[in-house]
Amino acid sequence: MFKHISIIGCGLIGSSILRSLNKKKLAEKISVFDKSKNVQSFLNKEGLCENVYDEVVKSVKGADFIIICAPLSSYKEITSSIKDNLNKDVILTDTGSVKKEIDTTINNLNIKDISWIGSHPIAGTEESGPASGVVDLFRDRWSILTPPTKHNEEHLKKLRVFWESLGSKVKIMTSEEHDQILSLTSHLPHAIAYNLVRTAINTNESFREEIIKYSAGGLRDFTRIASSDPLMWKDIFLDNSENILKVLNTFSLNIEEFKKAIKDKNEIKLLNFFKSTKNIRKEIIKAGQDTDKPDFGRKK
Amino acid sequence: MFKHISIIGCGLIGSSILRSLNKKKLAEKISVFDKSKNVQSFLNKEGLCENVYDEVVKSVKGADFIIICAPLSSYKEITSSIKDNLNKDVILTDTGSVKKEIDTTINNLNIKDISWIGSHPIAGTEESGPASGVVDLFRDRWSILTPPTKHNEEHLKKLRVFWESLGSKVKIMTSEEHDQILSLTSHLPHAIAYNLVRTAINTNESFREEIIKYSAGGLRDFTRIASSDPLMWKDIFLDNSENILKVLNTFSLNIEEFKKAIKDKNEIKLLNFFKSTKNIRKEIIKAGQDTDKPDFGRKK
Repeated sequence: MFKHISIIGCGLIGSSILRSLNKKKLAEKISVFDKSKNVQSFLNKEGLCENVYDEVVKSVKGADFIIICAPLSSYKEITSSIKDNLNKDVILTDTGSVKKEIDTTINNLNIKDISWIGSHPIAGTEESGPASGVVDLFRDRWSILTPPTKHNEEHLKKLRVFWESLGSKVKIMTSEEHDQILSLTSHLPHAIAYNLVRTAINTNESFREEIIKYSAGGLRDFTRIASSDPLMWKDIFLDNSENILKVLNTFSLNIEEFKKAIKDKNEIKLLNFFKSTKNIRKEIIKAGQDTDKPDFGRKK
Repeated sequence: MFKHISIIGCGLIGSSILRSLNKKKLAEKISVFDKSKNVQSFLNKEGLCENVYDEVVKSVKGADFIIICAPLSSYKEITSSIKDNLNKDVILTDTGSVKKEIDTTINNLNIKDISWIGSHPIAGTEESGPASGVVDLFRDRWSILTPPTKHNEEHLKKLRVFWESLGSKVKIMTSEEHDQILSLTSHLPHAIAYNLVRTAINTNESFREEIIKYSAGGLRDFTRIASSDPLMWKDIFLDNSENILKVLNTFSLNIEEFKKAIKDKNEIKLLNFFKSTKNIRKEIIKAGQDTDKPDFGRKK
């Protein structure tokens, strides 16, 4: 499909793409850049890639497809480093969780004759680093592509086929739509999980041991996403701040309404409140986005 | 261990106890009351119990151990119905998620010569009803016992052995401690999950389909507990309102602090914020309270 794919940043996402490309033999040549010496030696040791570079410029030379899998806050540095070393008509994409800010970054560089189209695979776990990558991470998961208004239709098609080859289902939308939707489905849940866990462990230090012991009553579900990569999430909350602040405000209004119902002992309101959220899980399971096994089917 | 165990209310929890008692042959006789005709016929059809009653008074006659597994809001009615038909020295317990309010209810009845000791097994799933009960629901889970200041030490010991026979680990504390701790580990997480899911699905009706599609980015973890039994949770929020309102206020303060860090683009504060919650999951896994598999080990 591509002659030479360059992967910039090889943590959980980058290494999962690499494993999948290796398995399916989707490129004649793959080169990888990661600034971490540990990651470089891990890739060499595991034999995951023959062309591992410690300079980003070297990794993109001659590539006809480049995918940035690095933290959002490193995009400016990466793109300005590589901009004078890109093949004509190269397709440049990424895997970042916020899209509008990246569009602006790329636009400001004024690079000619390349195709920038953002990607966001909705896949990942609470783990990070190349050792946690898995070959089928993208299978049956959605990948959202966010082409700028002016884009090369042929290249968009190639990008779609790329993600489909990794097992993804593909959806195309604008960066604005993406950032709004993800602020609800992903960024708000992470903000809340972090705040909830922080509230639980800080409220009463003397209860810390008890809180861990009895976390199966609900808290443990939240600790999974509250243990996601701090750097990645710091970047997301800054890059998508406008949408996130808006949904956090709506959330706070809902909490106030909920507190009032408790104070008023308004049984009917509370009951309707809880009923209203009961169906959404069924819809998510029906849409193939979660398991229907109780307790996520977890053994413990 | 007991001659005659009476189970009042036979949904997820009651039927799991029943299944476990049957398997381990822990009582000479078991009788069950449930007000629902559907539950009664389910128990008869499945052959789970030979003595299924539609009157609660009949189910407790002659019992030396009674366990209430019914909604908190039904306790007053149940206990006043049975109070004149109890064996001398019967042990009366329950499985409710709030303990102080029940103590008061029982105290107010002024029943002599019985042993009231509250129980709360920290077990369950998002499902409800007797068909969702499982024989090993309590295995390796904690059960908290909340004896009143004046209690029969011999009976407390028997109650502990009862839960241990079902596979539980047992912890003894006061009702006040229980209600405080559970407000953090269970009630706050549920309040937040309900409010989060409600915010996500109500904010923009036109995005509903997208929100379901891309829920794997975080939201789906919350929908599990936001689909728990509405009646049960309405009762919990009313019975433990004082503690819950207190932790909700602390939570709201944390959210405001978090919003300020985003507005100020305070990278260091955000980073520390996310780092502070990262370790708690490791501690929960180490304490045997959750699986260490990424994504809860769920297949989807």
